[in-house]
Parts: sequence; C-alpha cells; structure tokens
Amino acid sequence: MDIENLLERISAAARAETDRGAVADYIPELARIDPSQFGISVCLANGAQYSAGDAATPFSIQSISKIFSLALALGRLGDSLWHRVGREPSGYAFDSIVQLEYEKGIPRNPFINAGALVVTDAILAGSTPAETLGEMLRFIRTAADDEDIRINERVARSEKATGARNTALANYLLSYGNMHSAIELTLGTYFHQCAIEMTCEQLARSGRFLMNAPGSSLPRLISSARIRRINALMMTCGQYNGSGDFAFRVGLPGKSGVGGGILVIAPNRASIAVWSPGLNSYGNSKLGTEAMEVLAREAGWSVFG
Amino acid sequence: MDIENLLERISAAARAETDRGAVADYIPELARIDPSQFGISVCLANGAQYSAGDAATPFSIQSISKIFSLALALGRLGDSLWHRVGREPSGYAFDSIVQLEYEKGIPRNPFINAGALVVTDAILAGSTPAETLGEMLRFIRTAADDEDIRINERVARSEKATGARNTALANYLLSYGNMHSAIELTLGTYFHQCAIEMTCEQLARSGRFLMNAPGSSLPRLISSARIRRINALMMTCGQYNGSGDFAFRVGLPGKSGVGGGILVIAPNRASIAVWSPGLNSYGNSKLGTEAMEVLAREAGWSVFG
Amino acid sequence: MDIENLLERISAAARAETDRGAVADYIPELARIDPSQFGISVCLANGAQYSAGDAATPFSIQSISKIFSLALALGRLGDSLWHRVGREPSGYAFDSIVQLEYEKGIPRNPFINAGALVVTDAILAGSTPAETLGEMLRFIRTAADDEDIRINERVARSEKATGARNTALANYLLSYGNMHSAIELTLGTYFHQCAIEMTCEQLARSGRFLMNAPGSSLPRLISSARIRRINALMMTCGQYNGSGDFAFRVGLPGKSGVGGGILVIAPNRASIAVWSPGLNSYGNSKLGTEAMEVLAREAGWSVFG
Amino acid sequence: MDIENLLERISAAARAETDRGAVADYIPELARIDPSQFGISVCLANGAQYSAGDAATPFSIQSISKIFSLALALGRLGDSLWHRVGREPSGYAFDSIVQLEYEKGIPRNPFINAGALVVTDAILAGSTPAETLGEMLRFIRTAADDEDIRINERVARSEKATGARNTALANYLLSYGNMHSAIELTLGTYFHQCAIEMTCEQLARSGRFLMNAPGSSLPRLISSARIRRINALMMTCGQYNGSGDFAFRVGLPGKSGVGGGILVIAPNRASIAVWSPGLNSYGNSKLGTEAMEVLAREAGWSVFG
Repeated sequence: MDIENLLERISAAARAETDRGAVADYIPELARIDPSQFGISVCLANGAQYSAGDAATPFSIQSISKIFSLALALGRLGDSLWHRVGREPSGYAFDSIVQLEYEKGIPRNPFINAGALVVTDAILAGSTPAETLGEMLRFIRTAADDEDIRINERVARSEKATGARNTALANYLLSYGNMHSAIELTLGTYFHQCAIEMTCEQLARSGRFLMNAPGSSLPRLISSARIRRINALMMTCGQYNGSGDFAFRVGLPGKSGVGGGILVIAPNRASIAVWSPGLNSYGNSKLGTEAMEVLAREAGWSVFG
Repeated sequence: MDIENLLERISAAARAETDRGAVADYIPELARIDPSQFGISVCLANGAQYSAGDAATPFSIQSISKIFSLALALGRLGDSLWHRVGREPSGYAFDSIVQLEYEKGIPRNPFINAGALVVTDAILAGSTPAETLGEMLRFIRTAADDEDIRINERVARSEKATGARNTALANYLLSYGNMHSAIELTLGTYFHQCAIEMTCEQLARSGRFLMNAPGSSLPRLISSARIRRINALMMTCGQYNGSGDFAFRVGLPGKSGVGGGILVIAPNRASIAVWSPGLNSYGNSKLGTEAMEVLAREAGWSVFG
Repeated sequence: MDIENLLERISAAARAETDRGAVADYIPELARIDPSQFGISVCLANGAQYSAGDAATPFSIQSISKIFSLALALGRLGDSLWHRVGREPSGYAFDSIVQLEYEKGIPRNPFINAGALVVTDAILAGSTPAETLGEMLRFIRTAADDEDIRINERVARSEKATGARNTALANYLLSYGNMHSAIELTLGTYFHQCAIEMTCEQLARSGRFLMNAPGSSLPRLISSARIRRINALMMTCGQYNGSGDFAFRVGLPGKSGVGGGILVIAPNRASIAVWSPGLNSYGNSKLGTEAMEVLAREAGWSVFG
Repeated sequence: MDIENLLERISAAARAETDRGAVADYIPELARIDPSQFGISVCLANGAQYSAGDAATPFSIQSISKIFSLALALGRLGDSLWHRVGREPSGYAFDSIVQLEYEKGIPRNPFINAGALVVTDAILAGSTPAETLGEMLRFIRTAADDEDIRINERVARSEKATGARNTALANYLLSYGNMHSAIELTLGTYFHQCAIEMTCEQLARSGRFLMNAPGSSLPRLISSARIRRINALMMTCGQYNGSGDFAFRVGLPGKSGVGGGILVIAPNRASIAVWSPGLNSYGNSKLGTEAMEVLAREAGWSVFG
C-alpha cells in the first residue's frame, strides 16, 4: 500500500467536495473557522508518519479531549470510575439531558457531555483546575512527543459564554450527587480542555498510546487492557449518536469533536487524525468521516475482517 | 495457545459457578430449560473445531437468528434495506416501543425486535412463510455444513402464544407503513425463525461465513464488505442494551439470544458459540458473556489491540 | 340571555370562518366529510333545547363514545376500574404508546385510546361484542330519549382497516396483562362504538345525564358523585393534549372526537353539542372549540368564576 | 351548612390520622417541620372567615407562590407570556427536565418549576430582585389585607443551598433563550418567593382575589377573565402530576406547595387554605388533600355538578 499516495488522493477528493457539512455555530469562535480546510495525518506502528492537506494547521480538539481525560481518570480511579458513569451508547444527542433524568444522574458513557463532565470532575478531586489542566497537557504532550500543544483561551472563554447547556448538565448531575468538586471549577476545567488546539500531525502522534503496537519503542502510558477498553468505548460511543454508522462504514474506533477533528485508532497498526470543520447531521466531521471510510477500506484496516 | 485446554478450563469454571443468572421466563418453553448447562465451541480459520461442555446439546437460538435473516435481506435488497431500519444502538430494551414512536416507525437497528421484524418482513416480500423459512434454514445449513438443523415447533407455538409485545411492535410498524406483508405472516415467520435449534458445535460452524478468513476453503456466502458491516452492527448493537459493556469486556462482535446462546466472531480468526441458559440483567447469557471475556483475553482475540 | 340569538350568531360566525382546520384523514370514511359544516345544540336544565346550523346532520361521534363506555364501566366495576387505568392527563398524543411503556401497561386516563380500550375491555367481560354494543346503544338512546341512534358500519369497517395503531396499543396492553377479553373482540367493539353516529341535537340530549340538574325530571342514569368525577376527567383529560388549553379558554368539561364533535357540560346548567369536521393541532374541532369559547363566555357558564 | 362544625370535624379527623405522609426532605429547613400539625381556614364570599386547627401557625408557602407570580406576570405582560410557557399538564414530575428537551425550552405550564422560573424571569425584567420581591409581597399583603407576611431568609438560603435541580432547569431554559435576566438573579428571586411564610388564615384571605365573588367589597386585583384562566390552570396543572386525581376527588382548582399547604378556590363561593406538612406520592399534602375532599363534598362546592 502506498500510503502517501492514498492520503494525497483522499485529500484531493476532500478539497474537490462541494457538500462540506455545516460548521458548528453554537460556539462563536468555532463558527468563524474557514470550512474549506482539510487535513489528515497517519502514524504507523513502525514509527513512520504521513500527512496530507492542512495537517499542520491547529484546530480546536473539543470532545476529542475526552479520550485523554478518560485515560487520566482511569489511571487515577481505576474501575471505581464506572460507579459514576456507564459504558453504553446513549441513543440521544451528545448534550441531551433526558437520559440523565431516567437513569438518575448516571451518564450513559464518558463521551457524551454529561459523562465527560463526571470524568473531569473525577480528575479534579483534590487538585486545582490549573493543576488538572497541567496534568492533561503533560499527558498529551508526552503522548505526542511535542511540547507545543496549548489551550486557546479565546475559545475557552467562548465555550464558557455559551455554556448554558453544560452548566445545566453539571447542576443536574450535582442534584444527584454526581459532581464532587465545585461546579464552576469542573466547568472551567472542562471548557479549557475542550479548547486545546492541535494539528492533525500532533493529534495523530498523541493517539499512538492507544495503538498498542507490538514491539513499539513508544513509552507506554497505559496498560494493554485499558487500551482495549478505551478503544471499545470509542467504537460504541465515540461518534455520539452516529457511532453505529461510523462503525458500519469505517470499522475503527474513533472520537470526534465539534471542531471537525476525528482521532481514529487502527489497533496494532496506526493512529490517524483527520480534520475538516464542516459537520454532518450527527455533529461529526462530514469529510473527515468520508475520508476515514476510504482510508480504512483501501488500507484494509477495519477491525471487522 | 492450547485452545483445548483453555475451553476445558472455561467450561469447568462455568460449571462451578453458582450465580448463573435467570432463565428467560416469558416464553414457557424456554422457562423449562435446565440452567446448569454450559457449552462452548470454537471454529478456527484453519478449519479446526474445538468444543467443551454441553456443546452437542441443541438449544433455541432465538435472536441469534437475526444475523441470518439480516444477511439474507441484505443479499436480496442491498442497501435499500437501510431506508426501513437504522444502524444505531437503541439505548432502550430489546422489545421497547418508545423509540419507534419518537422516530416514526423506523427501528434503530436490525437486532432489536422491531428492526428484526422489518428485516423478516423484507425477506418475506413475494414469498410464503414456508418458502422464507426454507431459505433461511438452507442458508444456515449451508453455513454450518449440517442438514440436521431444525425449527422446534413447540417453541414456535410458545412464542406465538406469548407474542403480544411483538404483535404490538408489528402493528405499530404497520401504522407507519413499515410492514409490507400481512402482519400474521411476518409474525409467524419471525416466531419460527426464533425457534430454530442448534448445538454450540453447529452454531459455531454456521458463523464461519462472518469470519472472513483469508485463504479459507469455505464457500463464500456474502461479500467481505458485507461481512465487515454485519460484524460492525453486532459490535454496536448485538447485545441489546448491554452492547457497550460486551465490547468493553470482550472486544468482539457477537449476537445473543434469550435462549442463552451467543455467537461471537473473531474476525479472520474464529467463530465461537457459547451457551448457558441463565441471563444477566441485559438479557444476555451471564456465564456465556463471562466465558467470552476469558476466551478473548487469553486468546488475545480482542479487535481493540 | 337570548340563547337562540347567541347560537345563531355563533353559527353565522363559524360559517364565515375561512380557516376551518383539517379534516381527520387517517380514517378514509371521515376524510370524505364536507368541512364546511357546523352545528350546535344546547339542552338547558329546564328542559328546553336550542339549536343552530347543521344540528340535525348525523356525524361520527368517535372518541365522544368514551364517555358512555366509561359510565357503563364504572357502573359495572365501580372504583376497581381504577386499578387498570389512571386519572391523570397524559402529556402525550391521544394514540401515543410511549407512556404505556414507562408506566407498565396502565394507561394514564380513560380518554386516551389505550385507556378507552381498557374501559371497553372491562365492559366486554363475560359478554359478546353484540351484547356490549347493544348495552352501549341502549344507554345512549335512553340518555338522548331517542331510539334513532345507530352505528355506521362503513365507518366501523374503515376504522378496522386503518386500526394498526389501536391494534398495537391493545397488544401492548395484553403484554402487561391489561386486556382480559380476546383482542379482536375488544378492538371490534371499540371500532364500532367509535362509529356511532349522532346529530348535535341527539348528542346534546344524550349528555344531559352529566348535567346534574337540580330538580330535573330526567331519569337519573348515574349518581351525582359519579357525574362529578366524569366531568372532572373530561376537564383534565377530555381534549387530549389540548385539555389545558380548552379549560383555559372555555372553562367547561368536554370530550372531543376526531369526527369534529365535542360534547360539553355546563354543570347544573346545560349540555352542549357542537360539531365542525376541521380539527386544530390537538386533534379537536377547531371551530367547535372557538364556538364553545364564545358560548361559555357570553353565557357566563365557566365553572371558574 | 354549619361550616364551623364541619371544619372542627375535619381538623379532629386529621389529628387522629396516623398515616400522615412524609415531610419533604430535600430542603433541610422544611425537613425539620413537625408533621403532626394541621390547619384549615375558609373565607366565604360574604366576608366571613372560619378556621380550625393550627390555622395561625406560619408555614412556607413554596409553590403556592407561583399563583401570585403568575398573576403579576400576566398583569405586566398580558398574553405574550404564553409565548414563553404553555398551558398544558406536563405528565412529568414537578422538577422534570425531560419535557423541556422534547419541547425545546418551552415549559408545559407555569406551575411546574421550569414554568415558574420563566414567570419569575418575566416579572424580573428591568427590575432588581429586591424590587420584584417587594412587588410580590405588596400584592400578597394587599390580597390578604395583612402587612405581617414575610420571607423566611433561612428557608431561602436552604433552597439556594439545595437548588441544583432548579439551577439546571434555569440554565437549560437559558440554552434555549428562555431566560432573559441573569440566571442568579432569577434563581435568587425564585428561592425567596418560595420562602414566603403565611398562616392558613392569611393564605385563605390572600386567595380571595381568585374567588370572583359577585358583589364583593374586596378590592379587585385582576379581571374576571384572568381569574377564570388562573383557576383553570390550577385545575389542570395545580397539583403537579396529581392534578387529575385532585380534580377527580375534590373538584376544585387549587395550588399545592411542598411545605404542605394548599390554596383552593371555590369559584364565587370561597377561598380555602389547608396545611399539613406530610406529603403524598405526588408531593402534595396528604391530609390537606383528604380534608379538601371532605370539605368540597360536604359543602357541595365541586364545580362539576
């Protein structure tokens, strides 16, 4: 497989596409992003990295940060985290509050907003937001082997200014005793983690810790058992209410963000980051999903046979 | 890996377990099954088959039949089937009707009861129930390379006698125009397909068509692309509202039935059938799920790394 | 108050109205009704009756029949009926099945379809559909003092032919043990009771048993306590998901049907029938509701002061 | 009717009752109230007032305050208020957030918490919380003809300290643009209005403005049309998810609070306040509801005939 050529073809096809989805408009800072951009980057198990398109342009990782916070929370709390958050697809939109009422304050999984707030709250226990965000950035920088990964403060402020739905979720969780730190601190930390910026190149490198590559020289950040479990959650819950469709079309675990990025793992083989700001009806990058469908098919990377 | 020894250990552990879950009691014929039974059988890509426990005892495959009807429906209708049924996890119980109302008669996926009724209705178009069931049995017998696979008429009658919930679902679908054949025929066919009986040995062999084994001498029943997609649906939706948990713990696509059977696919590697009648809170075999967790871990078969 | 003049003014205004709502189209026989019709009739406590417009034209009473079946069921079972059906507004559409799942087969009230099916099932116990319908007709004819009230068989057949949603509800109730007779008999009886035809003049007379008029010479069909309770249910649940709005605007208990009729009771004062086939967004007669708003206001009949 | 004797009998029966319901425990200040208390007071249209039991003991009126805020909001905004809040029973618990999501931020009615927050927010427009609470107290004091009606600051603080669910509701409303003032101000005002204290004697007098008594010498605070409409809303929505049952058993419009008080209006005849801290399963005063059932029946005050 000539991966360089494949990425170039995918990138060219994405550039030529006219139906690019709609840029998220509920966060003003995101609404201003140029929708014509597309980037993709792939890290292979052998250490090589290939990229195409706008792979060096930073974008807001948004919900992709939930993977890193989950890894940290599991590292700190272990399986006791699962008393506070479930592991099932939700069947509702990413910011829905309906399920929380029916299931008495236990979010369905760590990747919907309510679940991610619980995860961030769990990491925050006994720390300040600055310490927690510092730890998160250190984890990501180590994983990406790149110190130049930062939080965009303008985006963080924009998230906060438009954060009523998340504030509602956090207070609803609190009413069931499933927020332990002060609400404002958890929300502030959450808004900042969503505002982390990375390029496709950085994001693909940061995902290598989930590749579980045999004989890799990478530092091992979490155990193989935990890698498999995080990948499983990304497969069943990583694309919000479009996770089934993503598994059907792509066949790989991934996590999307409303900034238009998707981090996808081909277990034992590759860590892939794709980015295009326009979203499909599920709230996932439209061209990013399409690109992953082609890449997984042509590379033969689907986990499903 | 000494798979024979591993299966014996798993079987012995299952026999020693005292908390075996509860046998499904809403179908009288199933409620009479002895809960102390446990069987497991594995077909490898190289053609070898290994079994342990009650692997030669026939049981009611129930919802596992939904895999075969889906394969037939896709063969006949292709992707137009997806206009009538979705591909997302439901977030509700397998026999829930709530989602159908909110989503105007389109079931979330082909593995919840409502979706499976649509799939059976789709196969039935222009055929009689006898022809349709004949075709389904032929498919399964060919896949299993075994003519001795039959429908248990007593179970089929028991399903029908207690089939009010499914009859409600079928009529609800009809009210949205999503049942095309006569309701009684679709329900009759569905009750009979659920009443197909197989042993673990037969079921494991019948699942080989989803293995996508490279260089296999098996007859190819469906395309590789379709295999991957059915496996993807089994991963995200195959264990009802416990699919996320199964992916998390086992890491393989599978389909469970309330008879206590589970068919699990390790893509490119193995087709596995496990059976124990007692169910966990999700309605999936309790010991079967636990056995699969051990087998996938010790065999290193998780698709997630 | 010059009631004759008032009814003529209301009728004239209704005739002049151009926005008449939409005739129910899911039952073919109802879809053919001329939407330009409007009739109204009022029976006062003193025995006088006044009418205007198409008050002598028969129409399908549809869900208004639920009042008569409820009165019969309470007469036969007394308060034990309330173990099988609730007394609260549903918050869902009249034919919704969602609430039934959440509340395990107990319909919220006797006026949504699911609740009315339970009520009809309760009357049917130990009788044939013909006997039950005969009893219902006798009750209505006695109440209206008019033998010329019949079932329209064509409408009954049309209801049955398009009755998938009601069949789904009945089977769903059965799955929770809340249907005691054979489903087909209960549904057949229900479809026929909905197909009873009356004119506004007949309907207004048939409602006098709920007036509880002091010193009336009318035969007493049910006790005062039961009258008050049925009126209360009509106030809180009689206009489906528009009951709150009807109470707010009209201030009187009433029961609507998708045939465009509404029976309204001014306790101690009047029984009023209004009919116009076009429905508003709640499924209640648009002009009928507006006419009742004017009549209640000008007559000073609101129960709310 | 000897109303003095009737109230004494009702009060004696209430004192003798052993099953008194459960005092609300989610607001610590309310959880400390002695559940053995019971008071009742009745103001007749002729100006006479009769009381029995603990009718001179102040209690927290809680949600009964929603009547006064609604009257003020309608006075200020008129019918444009109904663009922001509906008029239908909710079918959900008083503090449910589910309906808000399904209906995109428009609360079903002004008496569930979400609706009451919108009403308070509407009054607050352009005023400070202190001014708004001052206006509300003036309205109540004028209605009750009693200056000695105050806010219990300890209760207000207790509401705030345990107000996560209401804070979630307010933020959820904000996310749909249905909160116009600063959230903290609306919540602060709401927590204080719930903490208003009155005795049964004061509360019964304060409700006289909804009696619409003919020829009364009372100052008219709102129009007859508005009185009827508020009474209608109390009938269909005033007892949360037990409104249908209250209408069925009592037959009068009323508004309950979790402090155990209920204000009930017998249109044209009486304003009644009853109080007993123990609640039934709907969250309404258990003995208060039972007392009202007896009073309405023996006085013949049901509006339903």
